[in-house]
Amino acid sequence: MPEAFGVPGGPPGPPGHSFACAACGAGSGVEQAAWRCACGGPLELAEAAPFSRAAIDDAEPSFWRYARALPPLDPRHRVRLGEAVTPLLALELPAGRAVLKLDYLFPTGSYKDRGLAVLVSWLRSLRIRSVVEDSSGNAGAALAAYTAAAGIECTIYVPASNSPGKLAQAAAYGAELVPIAGDRAAVADAALRAAATRFYASHNRCPMFLAGVATLGFELVEQLGWRAPDHVVVPAGYGSLVLGLHWAFRALVAGGVLGGLPRLHAVQTAAYPALAAAWAGGADEVDARGGGPTLAEGIACRRPLRGRALLRAIRESRGTVTSVGDDETLEALRALVRRGVYVEPTSAVAAAGHARLATDGTIAPTETVVVVLTGSGLKAATTIGDLLAGRRG
Amino acid sequence: MPEAFGVPGGPPGPPGHSFACAACGAGSGVEQAAWRCACGGPLELAEAAPFSRAAIDDAEPSFWRYARALPPLDPRHRVRLGEAVTPLLALELPAGRAVLKLDYLFPTGSYKDRGLAVLVSWLRSLRIRSVVEDSSGNAGAALAAYTAAAGIECTIYVPASNSPGKLAQAAAYGAELVPIAGDRAAVADAALRAAATRFYASHNRCPMFLAGVATLGFELVEQLGWRAPDHVVVPAGYGSLVLGLHWAFRALVAGGVLGGLPRLHAVQTAAYPALAAAWAGGADEVDARGGGPTLAEGIACRRPLRGRALLRAIRESRGTVTSVGDDETLEALRALVRRGVYVEPTSAVAAAGHARLATDGTIAPTETVVVVLTGSGLKAATTIGDLLAGRRG
Repeated sequence: MPEAFGVPGGPPGPPGHSFACAACGAGSGVEQAAWRCACGGPLELAEAAPFSRAAIDDAEPSFWRYARALPPLDPRHRVRLGEAVTPLLALELPAGRAVLKLDYLFPTGSYKDRGLAVLVSWLRSLRIRSVVEDSSGNAGAALAAYTAAAGIECTIYVPASNSPGKLAQAAAYGAELVPIAGDRAAVADAALRAAATRFYASHNRCPMFLAGVATLGFELVEQLGWRAPDHVVVPAGYGSLVLGLHWAFRALVAGGVLGGLPRLHAVQTAAYPALAAAWAGGADEVDARGGGPTLAEGIACRRPLRGRALLRAIRESRGTVTSVGDDETLEALRALVRRGVYVEPTSAVAAAGHARLATDGTIAPTETVVVVLTGSGLKAATTIGDLLAGRRG
Repeated sequence: MPEAFGVPGGPPGPPGHSFACAACGAGSGVEQAAWRCACGGPLELAEAAPFSRAAIDDAEPSFWRYARALPPLDPRHRVRLGEAVTPLLALELPAGRAVLKLDYLFPTGSYKDRGLAVLVSWLRSLRIRSVVEDSSGNAGAALAAYTAAAGIECTIYVPASNSPGKLAQAAAYGAELVPIAGDRAAVADAALRAAATRFYASHNRCPMFLAGVATLGFELVEQLGWRAPDHVVVPAGYGSLVLGLHWAFRALVAGGVLGGLPRLHAVQTAAYPALAAAWAGGADEVDARGGGPTLAEGIACRRPLRGRALLRAIRESRGTVTSVGDDETLEALRALVRRGVYVEPTSAVAAAGHARLATDGTIAPTETVVVVLTGSGLKAATTIGDLLAGRRG
């Protein structure tokens, strides 16, 4: 990536463009159906325009109320499944008080609905009729739901080793599931080959997904009475929450709503610590790392596509990257569920990170910390039951 | 029940009392930990006080914003798990346009959170430390969650024949599950015996549960811009939605907000048609009826406890009672899920009822109809997958 783009906040791109290539710096707009730059580089969101309270659409009860912050999209193309403002819940956890953002109280049960709702609305605006994707988890379910609502054909490539239970939701919406033998890379390769004839609606690659996730940042600040929390803790695999929140918080700083960025803390699972390793080593780019089983399947990512942007965003916010073991994840899961907060193990990674940061003094008892919980426990009821009963993990 | 209580809207009870016995008419208040009248009769909510927009607590984003309508409860006792206003979704269904109320986007995945949040808050205000209940479904999960949050011990009696998957959620929250051999009545008997030493927190018996469910009525009318829909269609087993909505709508009529009651349509599953049979026969009371398997497990009820009140409420609203077969439920489920709305089969019963009423002309194409969807599909992913793939049902 050229030096010119090493500015905090990511490549600005040419004025008026919504996306910018992280490799060559070329800008592009929403009118182009592209999931990567012509040079092959990954697309990022261009620098956010300043956002202030006056830009909110107050008549809109969902995250579309922040639509003026996002790349331009005619409201008539919005695909809706009943999105609400997700609740905040202040809770006394063993490591201290935290404000939990229950960002799984969405139609398909995970925060990915923010990103996929926006991504699929964009696809509809471009009259895309058929898409492919590779995901066996929450993103696949969300893509299947929103494409079903939009009348877009959806094919999802999945590892042949996946349990049918994990795929039941996407299949129920009517998506075609294609099992692929081999590892995760083989599945992605199969999707890429299929992308020769259909649009590759990769949530990890299309920056419109990030734009949707960014609505979380605006929503949090509005819910907190237009104040920034001191800290925000998120689970991190590909890092969409880090990038989306950073983008939104920068827009709010630029708009004069916030005096500075909240500190962004990315928490990984010890089995997939690529970002944590790069962070610990003071690197500017993230190398592939990790593998094997983990309780936190949702962030089992060997190498994030936008590693450089992730490191930059976390540094700019004076945040941290940490990784937690499955034992810490399980302990955090138990603490949440036994208080009535029913989340997927991947969500508990953020709570485990909060415990670590509260214990080591990074987060002071007097500071406000938001812990983002990303997936509903209803998606993993049997697993959670076994884990808490000591039959697994 | 004495003739004097045959007035529309149910027994008023002595002034200042929150509950009234359906059998002897005695009134009682929230300060008394009782799940039935001293005479053994079932308790109902006393007539609602008039409710107007000014009574809303606008600072409160959850259903507690309607707390002034409910029996009095100190706000400090409220038990919270992150409740939001559940979304409305206007959708074109095969039988016509409907406004779907996604009343499962709650912490535990079903509308029962309304009732159990209020019921458990009341128990906390009374310093109840330990409760028993008999439920293997959504109510048990919700009770387990809210008692966990309140620090109340929870024991749930369940049929020994239940699959462990169905119980995983309640167990994860920390509730003790006691399997009982025999039919549903044997399970209820076991809970009743245990109630000699612990409070019987029966959601079907405690009228505070109905008060919580009633918040749905206020919320719907506020979301629709302080207008009543022409029709509301709900699934009905014990009938808490019918009674709660009727109570709330009457309060809004008395408060001058609404000019009249929306028509309330109760939909049963053909396997458990007790209310539908009484309705068809023009009866004033509901006799036990039905049994066996049904897709709609959540409303598998042989006899509702408050049958007389149910019939009265539906008549007063100029509503209907109907029952649908599993084939209609499956067809409605498919129509919903293939449009991205992922619900439990029991919820699809209401959509099947809507189809019936739209087809027979009870609901005109120009009228506004709300279909209440009650349980998340995430609770039944494997079942739904099998059903839509034709492997079941």
